Amino acid sequence: MQTLYDVQQLLKKFGIYVYVGKRLWDIEMMGIELESLYQAGLIQPVTYAAAKHVLTQEHEAELHREKLKERLAVDKKLLGIDLGGTTVKFGILTREGIIQQKWSIPTNIEDNGCHIVPDIIASINHHLNLYQMTSDDFYGIGMGTPGTVDRKNGTVIGAYNLNWTTLQLVKEDIEKGLGMPIAIDNDANVAALGERWKGAGDNHPDVTFITLGTGVGGGIIAEGELLHGVAGAAGEIGHITVDPTGFPCTCGKKGCLETVASATGVVRVARHLSEEFSGDSQLKYMIDDGQEITSKLVFDLAKEGDKFALMVVDKVCFYLGLACGNIGNMLNPSDIVIGGGVSAAGEFLRERVEAYFKEFTFPQVQESTSIKLAKLGNDAGLIGAASLAFKFE
Amino acid sequence: MQTLYDVQQLLKKFGIYVYVGKRLWDIEMMGIELESLYQAGLIQPVTYAAAKHVLTQEHEAELHREKLKERLAVDKKLLGIDLGGTTVKFGILTREGIIQQKWSIPTNIEDNGCHIVPDIIASINHHLNLYQMTSDDFYGIGMGTPGTVDRKNGTVIGAYNLNWTTLQLVKEDIEKGLGMPIAIDNDANVAALGERWKGAGDNHPDVTFITLGTGVGGGIIAEGELLHGVAGAAGEIGHITVDPTGFPCTCGKKGCLETVASATGVVRVARHLSEEFSGDSQLKYMIDDGQEITSKLVFDLAKEGDKFALMVVDKVCFYLGLACGNIGNMLNPSDIVIGGGVSAAGEFLRERVEAYFKEFTFPQVQESTSIKLAKLGNDAGLIGAASLAFKFE
Repeated sequence: MQTLYDVQQLLKKFGIYVYVGKRLWDIEMMGIELESLYQAGLIQPVTYAAAKHVLTQEHEAELHREKLKERLAVDKKLLGIDLGGTTVKFGILTREGIIQQKWSIPTNIEDNGCHIVPDIIASINHHLNLYQMTSDDFYGIGMGTPGTVDRKNGTVIGAYNLNWTTLQLVKEDIEKGLGMPIAIDNDANVAALGERWKGAGDNHPDVTFITLGTGVGGGIIAEGELLHGVAGAAGEIGHITVDPTGFPCTCGKKGCLETVASATGVVRVARHLSEEFSGDSQLKYMIDDGQEITSKLVFDLAKEGDKFALMVVDKVCFYLGLACGNIGNMLNPSDIVIGGGVSAAGEFLRERVEAYFKEFTFPQVQESTSIKLAKLGNDAGLIGAASLAFKFE
Repeated sequence: MQTLYDVQQLLKKFGIYVYVGKRLWDIEMMGIELESLYQAGLIQPVTYAAAKHVLTQEHEAELHREKLKERLAVDKKLLGIDLGGTTVKFGILTREGIIQQKWSIPTNIEDNGCHIVPDIIASINHHLNLYQMTSDDFYGIGMGTPGTVDRKNGTVIGAYNLNWTTLQLVKEDIEKGLGMPIAIDNDANVAALGERWKGAGDNHPDVTFITLGTGVGGGIIAEGELLHGVAGAAGEIGHITVDPTGFPCTCGKKGCLETVASATGVVRVARHLSEEFSGDSQLKYMIDDGQEITSKLVFDLAKEGDKFALMVVDKVCFYLGLACGNIGNMLNPSDIVIGGGVSAAGEFLRERVEAYFKEFTFPQVQESTSIKLAKLGNDAGLIGAASLAFKFE
């Protein structure tokens, strides 16, 4: 009597066939059957002792195997997708947020964007084959997308840069195509999650992220939760009113932060202020001369000491400081993280925003909320998207 | 063989004493022992059947008793304390938020407020005696207090209207004095919890509460969680900057909502605007005549059609609409609830705030976020405080 097979044979002699389906439970059930045979005096003490010894050892070994399997499950990966208007970025991440594999494909927005989801499925299947991985190696997929996301149903609508004008059943299609669960959220929100988790937010529970790009977007994490609001419109930092009588915004109202702090907003502020500036300035000269100017140019000239460019930067930072101040007064996050193209101006921008931020916050917030620059650059979206898959843990 | 005692006596004859500690388990264990005695041929079938019958019945009865006990546990109460500068309000609430008993005592702020906590303990003990209740009848206590609260340690500091200038070990003292766990939070926060739970917030997961009183306070609930921020300063709606060049605030900065929308703020706006108003107005006359005016007077005169009073109300509602607008743009709550003394102006105030709110929000927020008047009045704090005790459920 040395193996589990021997014990099985012993039980079989008495017409007992144990098959519960799970090895650990089978062993336990065999133990109970053995016990009752012995109690009924049907097997000898020596046989009983030998069989019991085998079962005890097998039980211990099986417990060990199960624990190992559990540990392996803990080491599953996260699959992140960052869907944008020009490229789709993919990443395989460890649960510690380390990107182990990264690739991308161009976004084919032709034919109302109907190729996008099939392309995503094909690309993931291709790469999983390449890495000899299967869906079992992942908790699941997390994806950031433009447009309005219905998180519960996993649908997307109104993503105009993808030509997705009608309702897209993204979750349903991808889950069918890959056999893995997927969680979807807005692109600015997942970037906020990324910067909070592995970037400037140091995984703090209260972090607000602002991205200054073509537009101004954002995401708010408070008490460890990403805020969505009742209609999914929370975190729209770009539409905070910083000047009730300000420039009209594409959203329909006036004086939104986006109208003065996006890349085009900075240029707008420059053109507007140039009318009242009369001193010596290369920026002023270029505007008056009808040359094309950019947000980067404004910041570069300001860094070189151009008086008018400095005035423009000061005004932009005033508005950013006012918006950040009110974020601080309302939410008191540990970190307000500024990212996006305009934030490439770096510390020169940050310190000026911070100065106004301190002017517009009360002491407790001044002391506890920091203004920081984003750290992850383009990876923020991918990392944050992948983190959505933790819900399938 | 009719009772459990008889079965115990039977087993005792064979030297078997069962005492696991929990009655239900004892009965089960006695069943096992009875079975093995019978299997071993030590008791007669008739004795076995009788004993087994008793055990089965007792088991069923005990299961029933346990379920009843569980149901009673579910019906435990919440004890709420709303600590204010003039009175301490107490309430015993059902888990559905119904106030079953309510009483109050004056707040004795003499001797650095050292009598407050002992008075609270004595009053609760007195009333529990009166109602023949013990600490077992409660999940625990929830309390709202002025000052800065350390929620983890349950301490309070800087509650100047209580004369609490040094650190008060409120949690430690009350738990020692009453033998019940207590959770403590800021008074504006618990009022927000109350209005959200049983008031205008309809228990929605995203509700912001603004109280317009001597000062302007508030509390934010998002994704079902009360927001505290990194230093506990979240929800300070009163210090949102609504005018970067506005009146100086007690907090040290300028143009806070509190400077223009609190009871004294409304009067401040009236005095300020009166300098530039030259038409016919009783309010203007009273100010110029040096008479004392109040926020209530301003709203009452405005309701009567006083042109200048209407101008003041319009300015106040502009600032409130701007602040509410930015709350909406950032958090997209289902409800922004306005309470406190100034909100007694009712629908006259609400509809004007709402009009400006719509001017300062983008379409999605306009459509999904409502401006509402508070419903619970003075009970908001008590009800919200009591709800903190759910954490001891």
